[in-house]
Amino acid sequence: MAAQPKQQRALKTRDDILHAAAVTFDELGYKGASMREIMRRAGVTLGAVYFHFDNKEALARAVMLSQTGELTANLDSEGAQRMVDFSMVWAHQLNVSPLIRAAVRLAVEQQAHGIGDKVSYGDFEAIFQTWLESAREQGELAPGVDPSVVAEFLVGAFTGVQHYAQLSDAMATLPDRVVRMWHLLLPGIVTRECLDRLVIDPARGRVAVPPAGGDSAA
Amino acid sequence: MAAQPKQQRALKTRDDILHAAAVTFDELGYKGASMREIMRRAGVTLGAVYFHFDNKEALARAVMLSQTGELTANLDSEGAQRMVDFSMVWAHQLNVSPLIRAAVRLAVEQQAHGIGDKVSYGDFEAIFQTWLESAREQGELAPGVDPSVVAEFLVGAFTGVQHYAQLSDAMATLPDRVVRMWHLLLPGIVTRECLDRLVIDPARGRVAVPPAGGDSAA
Repeated sequence: MAAQPKQQRALKTRDDILHAAAVTFDELGYKGASMREIMRRAGVTLGAVYFHFDNKEALARAVMLSQTGELTANLDSEGAQRMVDFSMVWAHQLNVSPLIRAAVRLAVEQQAHGIGDKVSYGDFEAIFQTWLESAREQGELAPGVDPSVVAEFLVGAFTGVQHYAQLSDAMATLPDRVVRMWHLLLPGIVTRECLDRLVIDPARGRVAVPPAGGDSAA
Repeated sequence: MAAQPKQQRALKTRDDILHAAAVTFDELGYKGASMREIMRRAGVTLGAVYFHFDNKEALARAVMLSQTGELTANLDSEGAQRMVDFSMVWAHQLNVSPLIRAAVRLAVEQQAHGIGDKVSYGDFEAIFQTWLESAREQGELAPGVDPSVVAEFLVGAFTGVQHYAQLSDAMATLPDRVVRMWHLLLPGIVTRECLDRLVIDPARGRVAVPPAGGDSAA
């Protein structure tokens, strides 16, 4: 531990706080979570919490922003398959990861707490667009399909499908809903040949995703 | 006024309260709205408010439930066109009607307030399914399309597209987003012939929808 560079230690502390905040938001809701409770769960001082995050809202924004990095960490497919795999990881993680659950819940409910931050949605839109453009370069997109239009729509569609699954059965059916969604959408997005090749399977979402602060488990 | 039947008067009072509650929720948010403020705006006694609604949550649920009736009141098209027209009315009303704005906002944020009511979403799913089944009877649906799968997806998709538009530009671009959404989705849902016939136009959503308590304006 003593050999660990200072900066790396600070990063680990920040990650611990972020993870503790997510668990607390997930369990108690944004309103119910206090900086003191987050401090207690992270096993750090209140000073450390405030060194990294100005206030609870800053923590909530950081939790929302952490989604894309967490979810894309272990993807190894490309183009359209990467987009589908990503959605399966997301649907699975929403059932098992407090960080992802808290991030998505905060993103949906933020306006009830006086926050109006679309940055996390913008992140998703940007990565969808990148993957769709790479799909187009590989000849996977149907003629006339505009990656930016599809990317924008997918962000909204995923958000709403998640929300409806949350209200309906606390997210248990989300992976199946995502499969049905792709079967509806993909024929309008990719070529017939690409569609025949794509694997739309919730099992591909059950890959290990490192937890927040994962590299510091040692 | 004296000739007005008692029951009708009670209905008008209930509508007045519902409308005042929506305006208050829209302006102050659920948390900020009090039964006393709603009473003041409705111009009724606190006793009248509690006669019709047990508490603020009951009012919120009633506001959420009022959506479908309000939005379908003036539709005169059928099948797939009715579904598209409905979405345009919805997108327009989200820009102009406090009742619809409050209803949708409450539905999205309800879990932040400890409410988990999917009834309003179920209402939407049921009417989409009805219209899709009528579209199928008229030969408008593409082969293999399952009305219940499409209806469930549409509820999620509309919810999320609305939410993203709300965060992005306070709903101003929602009608255009809905147009783009239909252009993406409809080729997978309806036949080519039906698609060529459909009018996907925000102007069709700018029909007059009666306000809550509308028939009692006299």
